[in-house]
Amino acid sequence: MIGKLIEGIKRTGAPIVVGLDPQMKFIPASVKKEAYDKYGETLEGAAESFFLFNKAIVDAVCDLVPAVKPQVAMYEALGIPGLQAFKRTVDYCHEKGLLVIGDVKRGDIGSTSLAYATAHLGSVEIGGKKVEPFGEDFATVNPYLGSDGVKPFVDVCRENNKGIFVLVKTSNPSSGEFQDREIDGKPLYELVGEKVREWGEDAMDESGYSEVGAVVGATYPEMGAKLRKVMPKSFILVPGYGAQGGTGKDLVPFFNEDGLGAIVNSSRGIIAAWQKERYASFGEAAFADASRQAVLDMKKDIGEALGK
Amino acid sequence: MIGKLIEGIKRTGAPIVVGLDPQMKFIPASVKKEAYDKYGETLEGAAESFFLFNKAIVDAVCDLVPAVKPQVAMYEALGIPGLQAFKRTVDYCHEKGLLVIGDVKRGDIGSTSLAYATAHLGSVEIGGKKVEPFGEDFATVNPYLGSDGVKPFVDVCRENNKGIFVLVKTSNPSSGEFQDREIDGKPLYELVGEKVREWGEDAMDESGYSEVGAVVGATYPEMGAKLRKVMPKSFILVPGYGAQGGTGKDLVPFFNEDGLGAIVNSSRGIIAAWQKERYASFGEAAFADASRQAVLDMKKDIGEALGK
Repeated sequence: MIGKLIEGIKRTGAPIVVGLDPQMKFIPASVKKEAYDKYGETLEGAAESFFLFNKAIVDAVCDLVPAVKPQVAMYEALGIPGLQAFKRTVDYCHEKGLLVIGDVKRGDIGSTSLAYATAHLGSVEIGGKKVEPFGEDFATVNPYLGSDGVKPFVDVCRENNKGIFVLVKTSNPSSGEFQDREIDGKPLYELVGEKVREWGEDAMDESGYSEVGAVVGATYPEMGAKLRKVMPKSFILVPGYGAQGGTGKDLVPFFNEDGLGAIVNSSRGIIAAWQKERYASFGEAAFADASRQAVLDMKKDIGEALGK
Repeated sequence: MIGKLIEGIKRTGAPIVVGLDPQMKFIPASVKKEAYDKYGETLEGAAESFFLFNKAIVDAVCDLVPAVKPQVAMYEALGIPGLQAFKRTVDYCHEKGLLVIGDVKRGDIGSTSLAYATAHLGSVEIGGKKVEPFGEDFATVNPYLGSDGVKPFVDVCRENNKGIFVLVKTSNPSSGEFQDREIDGKPLYELVGEKVREWGEDAMDESGYSEVGAVVGATYPEMGAKLRKVMPKSFILVPGYGAQGGTGKDLVPFFNEDGLGAIVNSSRGIIAAWQKERYASFGEAAFADASRQAVLDMKKDIGEALGK
């Protein structure tokens, strides 16, 4: 699957993923009204507004980027109707030719990790048919439980041509509490990075990259530079650009010399662009056009930083 | 909420939680037939068989234990119908007077962790009403992202009288890959344990225990003894008893001198008891009675080990 992501990056010229992390406060009143008119002010109505909001943004940006990254927590907070909207979003993005990175940060052990991997990247055989429970193309995975937790995901990736991104160094201020602590002279995130490289050796793609990528925050460019060398064949999914403070030039160390090896996420900076001063002239009704412009601006910022 | 759990443990005399982690291979043919007759051999049918299986076991054990721990991964692997069965299980257990520990192992940062906490322990205000998306009483939380990831859960616990169990030392063989590595002379799990104590200081219950507990595997009793001292006011949720190899005497170090401070989970050993030689005489039709006997035997084993 990492090969397909690379194709998409080359086709669009944009190593960019749009984070579809809806919150009610980002959604224009007209979208909420349409959803509530249909389902009432209920979880179903709120979930419908998530889907309508996502759909408009996806329609506006699907020719510009290779992939989207819905954050499942936002949907889970609306219960079953929210998760139905998550699934509809995954399916709609596929219809529009986008790859989907499920930002699920799952991780458990043995048969339980296998169940999560099946849920998001695999299929269940039932009644003689194979059914994909959620059907994303990639998922994010938490490494705290060690190889027992990650390997079932790697197996499912190999069987189904899917990929994962393992949390290595996250973008948040307190990520250092555990991740930066030194063990035998190396920070924990580096040990996790070494494991990512090792896990990836069992899941190499023809592109020369492995199906086991890593999450490293844009807010830590020096650590990104280090980790780039530790895991040369892993793609790095880089959150933290824009709203969390990462800029175009911070991203350079995350890329390999082939110009590949990283894909940068922006969520709020794109989906809530219409609420920012910079894009205020679009107005609320044209919120999706504001998102499109924010993607174009991000593409330019990253392209300039990479000297393209 | 930890006070309610303590009440339940005292009432039943059983510091035991039954893990409701259904898998198709544990479910008797008659239960599957009933479910498939209603919904066909579909995800809906499989999810219905999970619920019917859980319901029979809950009916058979609800007077013996204070709590259950459904593992959401198993339900998530059946997609939306599976998660509907998870929610129905939570609601049914509440009807039967059981507390519910959602084994969700979620963890993210900031607004995203808040969304997970809302999903499982909080409520959404919509249309002038408060709706609980999943409505468990406790949830398990992954600490890899640090305080940014855990504190939103602690806030939601305080506002809603709920509790969490943070993964500290997990029961699996490779948990040591990261968790046992030494940092300034202490293993990582101990540093996480110290943070659990610190996070818990903001969420103390009248019982003297905090709403922030820890997960420590029965398979590591020496580490349990150490962690018991590091986090004296945190309840320890202990997986790994039975199927994973932990025995009654391994559990002693997890308890405080007041006889409290730990609650032991068994999943497969109870819900799939009917498939074990020891309980074969019950027969497939009486699978729930076999589960009841397995709980009684576990209670006896733990009671003897604790000298009760």
